[in-house]
Amino acid sequence: MASSSVLFTDTSPSSAARLLHLRHRHAVVPFVRPLRVGPTQFPTPLRFSLHTSPSRPPLVPLASLTTEASAKVIDGKSVAKQIRVEVTAEVSRMKEAIGVTPGLAVILVGDRKDSATYVRNKKKACDSVGIISLEANLPEDSTEQEVLNYISSFNDDPSVHGILVQLPLPKHMNEQNILNAVRIEKDVDGFHPLNIGRLAMRGREPLFVPCTPKGCIELLHRYGVPIKGKRAVVIGRSNIVGMPAALLLQREDATVSIVHSRTNNPEEITRQADIIISAVGQPNMIRGNWIKPGAVIIDVGINPVEDSNDPRGYRLVGDVCYEEASKVASAVTPVPGGVGPMTIAMLLQNTLISAKRIHNFE
Amino acid sequence: MASSSVLFTDTSPSSAARLLHLRHRHAVVPFVRPLRVGPTQFPTPLRFSLHTSPSRPPLVPLASLTTEASAKVIDGKSVAKQIRVEVTAEVSRMKEAIGVTPGLAVILVGDRKDSATYVRNKKKACDSVGIISLEANLPEDSTEQEVLNYISSFNDDPSVHGILVQLPLPKHMNEQNILNAVRIEKDVDGFHPLNIGRLAMRGREPLFVPCTPKGCIELLHRYGVPIKGKRAVVIGRSNIVGMPAALLLQREDATVSIVHSRTNNPEEITRQADIIISAVGQPNMIRGNWIKPGAVIIDVGINPVEDSNDPRGYRLVGDVCYEEASKVASAVTPVPGGVGPMTIAMLLQNTLISAKRIHNFE
Repeated sequence: MASSSVLFTDTSPSSAARLLHLRHRHAVVPFVRPLRVGPTQFPTPLRFSLHTSPSRPPLVPLASLTTEASAKVIDGKSVAKQIRVEVTAEVSRMKEAIGVTPGLAVILVGDRKDSATYVRNKKKACDSVGIISLEANLPEDSTEQEVLNYISSFNDDPSVHGILVQLPLPKHMNEQNILNAVRIEKDVDGFHPLNIGRLAMRGREPLFVPCTPKGCIELLHRYGVPIKGKRAVVIGRSNIVGMPAALLLQREDATVSIVHSRTNNPEEITRQADIIISAVGQPNMIRGNWIKPGAVIIDVGINPVEDSNDPRGYRLVGDVCYEEASKVASAVTPVPGGVGPMTIAMLLQNTLISAKRIHNFE
Repeated sequence: MASSSVLFTDTSPSSAARLLHLRHRHAVVPFVRPLRVGPTQFPTPLRFSLHTSPSRPPLVPLASLTTEASAKVIDGKSVAKQIRVEVTAEVSRMKEAIGVTPGLAVILVGDRKDSATYVRNKKKACDSVGIISLEANLPEDSTEQEVLNYISSFNDDPSVHGILVQLPLPKHMNEQNILNAVRIEKDVDGFHPLNIGRLAMRGREPLFVPCTPKGCIELLHRYGVPIKGKRAVVIGRSNIVGMPAALLLQREDATVSIVHSRTNNPEEITRQADIIISAVGQPNMIRGNWIKPGAVIIDVGINPVEDSNDPRGYRLVGDVCYEEASKVASAVTPVPGGVGPMTIAMLLQNTLISAKRIHNFE
C-alpha cells in the first residue's frame, strides 16, 4: 500500500478566517452557477440511494471522465435565504409576544479592510431579519483591557444576546483571553471549549453550535440526505470547521473518519465516504477519483485562483474539483453559493436562539 | 456491499462503571495470562512494521487459523507498576522539596459492594505511592445537597488536589449537577466538558486527560508504537473511553475513525486499522478476521463470560477474541492485565499532576 504523495495543509484558524473574509468580501459578486433547484425556495429532498446509484458512471480515470454532470446542486444561497425568512418571522413573533428584539454585538479592533467588510455584511444581515446590531470599533493600538471592558459591558447588557469578536485581533492581544471573556450564554460563535466539550459528549447539549459546520449539517438536513449509519469523511480538522463538523456528524450517528495533513492515502479513505465535508483551503484538491459514485459533497473551501478571464484577475473555487465531482457525486455544493451563505444565516439563527433562551420564549 | 448483521451496544457510562467495578473487584484474582515481556519492568519498544509484517499469516477464515500465536503481549500490569514507581519517586521528591503531599478525596454514597471495593482499591493504590487519600462515606438516603456540601468542602481544602465521586450515585440524585460541582482544577477524572472541549481543540490543553483512554495511549507510547499518520479505529464512543480515546489519537496525528453501534460493516473499517482501541463491553466481538495483519490492539473491554471450569463460574474476557487476535495482530493487550491496571495508575498520575500544578512545582 504505497503512500500518496498528495500533501495539503489544514485550515488554520487564521487562514480559515481569511477564507471567511474572502467569502464575505465577495458575497455580493453575482458569480453563482446555474442552479437546478426548482422555483420553490425550500429545496425538495434528494431522492437517491447513497450506497448504490446505477445511473452514476463507474470510477474511471480522470482523463476519460466525459460523462455529463449529473450531481444535484446543493443550493446554499437558496437555503440561507429560506432560513433568513424563518428567522425574520420568529424575530417578529418574539417582538410582538414579549416586546424583545434579539441583539448582536460585534467588536472590531483595528482597520483591516477585510474584517470591516465582514462586519458590515453581518450588520446588513442582522438588519435584513430585524435583529438589532451593535458595533464597537476600537483603534488598532487599543489595549487588551479596553477590549475586555467592551466585552464586559456587552456581557452585562440585557439588550445584547450574542457577542462576536472579529478575528484576527492585533498581534499584541491574547486572543484566547479575549474570547474566553465572552459569557458562554452569549457565545453565538460556539467556539468556547465548554460548548465544544458538550458537543463531543453524548447526553450533553451545547448552548451554540459553531456556524459554519452547523450550516453544513443544515444543508444535508434540508436536502433530505440520510446521515445515520452512513460513512462520513471530514477533510481538515480545524477548531472552527473540521473538528466540530466531525462531532456533529457523529451526534447524528454517522461513522466518521477525519482526514488531515498527516493522513496517508487521503483519497483512499475519502473514496469510502457517503458524505464528504471538506474544509482544508486547497483549491481543487479533491478530484473525481477521490469520490465514491453517489456520494454527497459539502465543500467549505473558498480559494482564490488566478484567472485572467475574470475582471478581478482571479476566481473562487472550492477544495473539491467541481467539474469532476459533479460527474461522480449525487449532490455537491457549489463555490461560491454553497456553504458560504449558510455561515451568516446560522449566526442569525444562533442569535435568535440565544435571545429566546435568555427570555425563556418558545 | 452488504451490511453486516453484527450488532453491538456502546459502553454506556453505567455499564462501563459496572465493568470498572468488576475489574477492580477482581483485581486481586491471580488470573493473568503468561506474559512475554522480559524481566525488566520497563518494556522494550516493539520492533515491527505496522504496515507490512511478512511473518504474520495472511487473512484466512477463522476455522483455518491454526498458526501459533505470534503477537507481542502488551503488559499493562507491568507498565502500571512502573508508573507507580515513577509516581512514588515524584511524590517523595515533592514532599522533600516543598513539604506538600498530594491528596485525593473520594466520595462514596450508599453501600454498593462493588463501589466500596473500587474505592478501597483506589485508597490502597494511593497508600502504595504515598498519596494521601480521604474518604467521605455517605448513607444511601443522603440528599443531593449533603453530597454537594462535601464537594464544596473538598474544593476549598488545600490538602485535597483531586476529587472523585464514585459512580453510580443513588437514583434520586442528579449526577450531572454533582459532577459539575467539582472544581475543574481538581477534576482528576477529566470528565468535565471544559476538559473534553480542550482535548478536542487544537492549541488548547486539557487540565486532565480521562484515566482509561490516557492509559491506552500510555501503553502505545511505552511500547514504542508509532501513532502519527497511522490509521486508528476506536470501537465504541462512550464519554469516558471511546470518545476521549479518539480525540487523544487525533491529537497525536493518527487518522481516526470511530465505529459504533450504528456502523454498517464495522469489521470492514476495523480491518483498515493499524491501531485498534476497543471499548464496547461485548465479549469476543472483534474476531481475527476484523484485524489487519500486524495491527496493534488495545482492548478496554472486561466482560464476564460463563465458565464452569473456573471456581467462580465465570472468567473475564475482552471485546477482542484474544486467541484469534494473537495470531494476526503484532501486539495485543490481555484481559485482565492489559488496560485494567492502567486506569488506577493514571488516576495516581493525574492526582500528582494536579498537586504539582496547584503548588507550581516542576
